[in-house]
Amino acid sequence: MSVGKTGSGAARAGRTGRRPGNADTRTAILDAARIRFADNGFDKTSIRAIAGDAEVDPALVHHYFGTKQQLFAAAVDFPVDPESTLSAVDRAPLAELGDTIVRAVVTVWDSPAGPGIVAMVRSMLGGGELNLARSFLLQVVLERVRTRIATAEDDGRARTALAAAQLMGVLIARKIVGIEPLASMPIDDIVTAVGPSVQRYLTGDLDSGR
Amino acid sequence: MSVGKTGSGAARAGRTGRRPGNADTRTAILDAARIRFADNGFDKTSIRAIAGDAEVDPALVHHYFGTKQQLFAAAVDFPVDPESTLSAVDRAPLAELGDTIVRAVVTVWDSPAGPGIVAMVRSMLGGGELNLARSFLLQVVLERVRTRIATAEDDGRARTALAAAQLMGVLIARKIVGIEPLASMPIDDIVTAVGPSVQRYLTGDLDSGR
Repeated sequence: MSVGKTGSGAARAGRTGRRPGNADTRTAILDAARIRFADNGFDKTSIRAIAGDAEVDPALVHHYFGTKQQLFAAAVDFPVDPESTLSAVDRAPLAELGDTIVRAVVTVWDSPAGPGIVAMVRSMLGGGELNLARSFLLQVVLERVRTRIATAEDDGRARTALAAAQLMGVLIARKIVGIEPLASMPIDDIVTAVGPSVQRYLTGDLDSGR
Repeated sequence: MSVGKTGSGAARAGRTGRRPGNADTRTAILDAARIRFADNGFDKTSIRAIAGDAEVDPALVHHYFGTKQQLFAAAVDFPVDPESTLSAVDRAPLAELGDTIVRAVVTVWDSPAGPGIVAMVRSMLGGGELNLARSFLLQVVLERVRTRIATAEDDGRARTALAAAQLMGVLIARKIVGIEPLASMPIDDIVTAVGPSVQRYLTGDLDSGR
């Protein structure tokens, strides 16, 4: 399941009676978005510019895809709407970020979206061609967590990178390499084991405290 | 650079005057080892059985490849001799395992062997075919760490799996996905940041202690 696919032109036609031709409009918007995001990154790309390239009204872009972040997720074929995880991050108290993030991401990996995420990670690791999924992870997902923990003294970049590395490692060990007993460990046990590590990376003392 | 390759028949011929035909013997031993290790795993495979399949004397296998572990490393084209890292694990006090392991593995990744390790990890993540490198990691490398930390109450399997997941994540973030500032972080900073996490996974309280 990919973001936006359930709202594709063909599917919508069945539900709303819109002409199948709308699928072309969606495709044009996604194509324009991929080029813009790849060339200019997330921050410097506007919905207005993408709409201009696709020769549609910006309102139609919002109508089809929602926010700019959601459009990026659809453009990179992100297997889930990251908003559900990221809003959990926004809501959690700082002292509970570690457990909250681990529980949210492992829940998604273990959901029916899991195989799509594994495929995306594999493509990200394959390297070579321009990788929009990687850009999305770095420019949108990690940035959202970083702004949550940044302080005047610490921009939080190293912290979010370390937390991301920890989570990628658990994903790969659990879902790709299949290292037991981690591969079949109940989610509560993973949260108990890994949550404190992520918490320390995000808000703990990384210079000493050993 | 791969384990055993510097001792290949052709290279040895130049140094010792042995006939190039020895390269065929080495190849026969490696082929037999790959089949035996794949079919029976590390523990149930003997040097004697491999020698029998290759129709050579077991002493010759030891002469060319050293220990059974070193033969397995050569058979899977492991990019470094894991013995140097594993002997560091053997020597380190339990309370310093985390820092010791992180420093040892990051040093190897950052060495000229790094690209070979990245290639091996990519092949391990590619999935599909029988993966001897994965077997080697699980049956030899992790087992060696596990026996170091196992107690009467805890066989250490979950602990080594969690530590391995942490290290794989850092490797992938640093060397494959390239998440800054982790990708260019000095090794001392990585040891300070990640060492305590690995230490906690291996010897800390994973059930509570938050």
